[in-house]
Amino acid sequence: MSKERLCLYDTTLRDGQQTQDVQFSTEEKQQIARALDALGVDYIEGGWPGANPTDNAFFDAAPKTTAKMTAFGMTKRPGMSAQNDDVLAAVLNAGTGSVCIVGKTHDFHVETALGITLEENLVLLKESIAHIVASGREALFDAEHFFDGYKANPGYALDCLKTALEAGARWIVLCDTNGGTLPAEVHEITRAVIAAGIPGDQLGIHTHDDTENAVACSLAAVDAGARQIQGTLNGLGERCGNANLTALIPILMLKEPYASRFETGVSLKALKGLVRTSRMLDEILNRVPRKQAAFVGASAFAHKAGLHASAILKDPSTYEHIDPALVGNARIIPMSNQAGQSNLRKRLSEAGLKVEKGDPALGRILEEVKAREAEGYAYDTAQASFELLARDALGQMPEYFEVKRYRVTVERRKNKYNKMVSVSEAVVVVKVDGEKRLSVSESMDEAGGDRGPVNALAKALSKDLGQYSGMLEDMRLVDFKVRITQGGTEAVTRVIIDSEDGAGQRWSTVGVSANIVDASFEALLDAIRWKLVRDLDGASV
Amino acid sequence: MSKERLCLYDTTLRDGQQTQDVQFSTEEKQQIARALDALGVDYIEGGWPGANPTDNAFFDAAPKTTAKMTAFGMTKRPGMSAQNDDVLAAVLNAGTGSVCIVGKTHDFHVETALGITLEENLVLLKESIAHIVASGREALFDAEHFFDGYKANPGYALDCLKTALEAGARWIVLCDTNGGTLPAEVHEITRAVIAAGIPGDQLGIHTHDDTENAVACSLAAVDAGARQIQGTLNGLGERCGNANLTALIPILMLKEPYASRFETGVSLKALKGLVRTSRMLDEILNRVPRKQAAFVGASAFAHKAGLHASAILKDPSTYEHIDPALVGNARIIPMSNQAGQSNLRKRLSEAGLKVEKGDPALGRILEEVKAREAEGYAYDTAQASFELLARDALGQMPEYFEVKRYRVTVERRKNKYNKMVSVSEAVVVVKVDGEKRLSVSESMDEAGGDRGPVNALAKALSKDLGQYSGMLEDMRLVDFKVRITQGGTEAVTRVIIDSEDGAGQRWSTVGVSANIVDASFEALLDAIRWKLVRDLDGASV
Repeated sequence: MSKERLCLYDTTLRDGQQTQDVQFSTEEKQQIARALDALGVDYIEGGWPGANPTDNAFFDAAPKTTAKMTAFGMTKRPGMSAQNDDVLAAVLNAGTGSVCIVGKTHDFHVETALGITLEENLVLLKESIAHIVASGREALFDAEHFFDGYKANPGYALDCLKTALEAGARWIVLCDTNGGTLPAEVHEITRAVIAAGIPGDQLGIHTHDDTENAVACSLAAVDAGARQIQGTLNGLGERCGNANLTALIPILMLKEPYASRFETGVSLKALKGLVRTSRMLDEILNRVPRKQAAFVGASAFAHKAGLHASAILKDPSTYEHIDPALVGNARIIPMSNQAGQSNLRKRLSEAGLKVEKGDPALGRILEEVKAREAEGYAYDTAQASFELLARDALGQMPEYFEVKRYRVTVERRKNKYNKMVSVSEAVVVVKVDGEKRLSVSESMDEAGGDRGPVNALAKALSKDLGQYSGMLEDMRLVDFKVRITQGGTEAVTRVIIDSEDGAGQRWSTVGVSANIVDASFEALLDAIRWKLVRDLDGASV
Repeated sequence: MSKERLCLYDTTLRDGQQTQDVQFSTEEKQQIARALDALGVDYIEGGWPGANPTDNAFFDAAPKTTAKMTAFGMTKRPGMSAQNDDVLAAVLNAGTGSVCIVGKTHDFHVETALGITLEENLVLLKESIAHIVASGREALFDAEHFFDGYKANPGYALDCLKTALEAGARWIVLCDTNGGTLPAEVHEITRAVIAAGIPGDQLGIHTHDDTENAVACSLAAVDAGARQIQGTLNGLGERCGNANLTALIPILMLKEPYASRFETGVSLKALKGLVRTSRMLDEILNRVPRKQAAFVGASAFAHKAGLHASAILKDPSTYEHIDPALVGNARIIPMSNQAGQSNLRKRLSEAGLKVEKGDPALGRILEEVKAREAEGYAYDTAQASFELLARDALGQMPEYFEVKRYRVTVERRKNKYNKMVSVSEAVVVVKVDGEKRLSVSESMDEAGGDRGPVNALAKALSKDLGQYSGMLEDMRLVDFKVRITQGGTEAVTRVIIDSEDGAGQRWSTVGVSANIVDASFEALLDAIRWKLVRDLDGASV
């Protein structure tokens, strides 16, 4: 049986830009458009030509895409002809093959927000759509507040849709603009719309996540017969965001009943790039990727419960609803005080440490992890520190060098221009190759900016480690996270440091102390020890 | 018509703790339990007694709650009697009135994960539930992987439920453990379960957010007749999280058809505390609150689109599906316009600062807040620092003293017992009453423990401030939060300090710098300046 086609309409560049704190540059819009096109969506709504300089610049130099590039706008304003409305003219002037315009279908909004009669609004819809079609473009109609409008006055709301359809709109899109409609209602009303004569294969759905149901509402509309879904990458959008295409695409392609029944423009190969596309958008927005995001989050296939982890080892399908590789994601079995021995052995073997089932060292390691987590350590993320702890317990950790003492000074005073400036200085004393070595560094970066005491300490610590110094040259600190947490009864500081080297290895270490400098130093020390153990023992990553 | 009762079962302290990177302390669990009880949930699943020391300590001193405190565990292990299973015994020994145990209902899991026959599993379910009931407890049965089990072998999955019901379980909870079942299927299978004889008012639903449908799946089960909903605050939980009670509670209470048909244990008054409860959990986890979260997110009622914002001014119901005040949230309209300024005046008057409408100082303060927030400052929580910033802009901030310079030293070395110890020392030089004063303090507490450089700095700073010293004696630092954030293009450290005084006042201040000691010092300085301004100006709190 041949599959039915579902159409994907992306509005990351338009409704996604309505997200609080989001403001794309023209270059970023181009980058996102190319990524969307590579993914395989059918439409890319690029913005509202005429509404702001960025959107104008984007359409002036829009990338060539297989997806239909679409300009967004609104119906012509009352009191002038479609031909004479300069706002609508600006939208058409963007020269896109497809044009999507939003218009009213809710009687309350027609009368309150537009201040015109219901009949005048129908004329306005008809003329606006007809004008777009007459310009040789494909017209889409975003029926604003459709669900609220239908509940208030179903006859009028349907008349608006029919008017747009008869005027030549290719797609009629039911918009839940306020995001307040729940899935069962979306299902019921979408069915009623189709029953009233709007063909399902000309019907789209546009939802918002104000009740955390945007994905479910989109599915409910598809179940009822709609064949276009509007949404955004990572669920960006006004208020709580739009329907999240990053969740909807894998659902439609991998989950039943959709996978067997429908096809989209996204290939299974492109789907493997989904995590990468999601991260790219977060990079552009300088957002920390949401770990718990469905399908693409770093935690989406992380199995923390001991019961789950041990079953996963027998058969991943026991606790995974899809294979994470299908969307470019990966399984994680984190360490925690809920983890069982099987989880532990798996994690040790990932670190190149083979330990037999039943080895008493397993119990010792678990005890040590539990005791340290009670002090405030966290080994879920700090895999490298976990590995060092295990090596210590197994007697497989060489002592490359010993830190005898250190001292850090932070000083803030006026400089010669009478401006307050800070500088930190660190002295570290280590014993390596049987010799005592003193190193001193300060916290200034090349630009003369103060990077603080931890930076000074990191530099002094790695400055002279004898035979090991060469191995640390390509290592750098890429992230530094601090949390105040509870260690026993006292508040302590937990520091997690992410490091990277020239070979592209990235590893996380943890330090805990009431003293933030001490906690940082401990994490730094672990970072260096792990790098040495990997490079010298040649353990597989 | 009287309303039907829906039962809310919270598992933040158990399944929520399965979130990657989440590890509650015993005190934090107690704090969360009290907040859940104040909110009005029916059950609080406190953890798995016997699984880890934190959960044991929590049940040893569990807070007295109106909600039923519930211990979680698993069915007895094969090959021993329920009486002789020490894992199950540990769960019962927690002494809770309600006990929830998870057991298998999916034939594949019975055979693959447990390695026993289908018949043996039924016996095991029966004996485990019967043992709990015989111990005088209320029993709940979490039917693990129920939906997958039902699809694979409906007869067997239903037999498992019937066995648990007949053995005396008060609630049978259908768990979508892998999170892969979609809403329509949850609806259909839940109906089938009820049709097969499991009463809806003994039926619960437990979903996960792996397809972003956990809330919708919970609603689908309620639509089909289930009357208990399991979930977590802020949707914490294994992998992508559990059903988010922070979204479900307002849906059930405020949205149709639920609001008219059902009631829960949450009152409309308690619902107004929802945002506060959500933020409290983020504070404990030191997480940045998710701005786009449904109902409680800072952006949930932020109207960025120009069309929306202008209609909102005419009538908020044009673009809001509920009144934000009902959940303790607030509308946000971009700062630049008139609504922004009236918000600001409100906040200033709360700080005792009267500013006339139209005063150009309002614009200056808004500009300064924007510029500083771009550098990494955050004034949402740091109300005291915001007030100082406003006073500076209004020329209403006296300079009580001036910090000329400071120096902090952190030293780690061996003590006379050959043990590594740390000590920090701070020197602060201030000019007060026209005189220069030098103070020095170290970081040791009474017990000889090192409290770190910020502690030493705080002590030295407040040690000798001339005429002001007396006013600072009752002031103490009660919380200290550190976050790495973005200031312009560089990563900077943001420190938020909470202080308290003898009169019970509590205030928050913020400092930002690439240098964590500097950032802390700035926040400390603000804390002292705010205390002096309040005590000397007598401004009302």
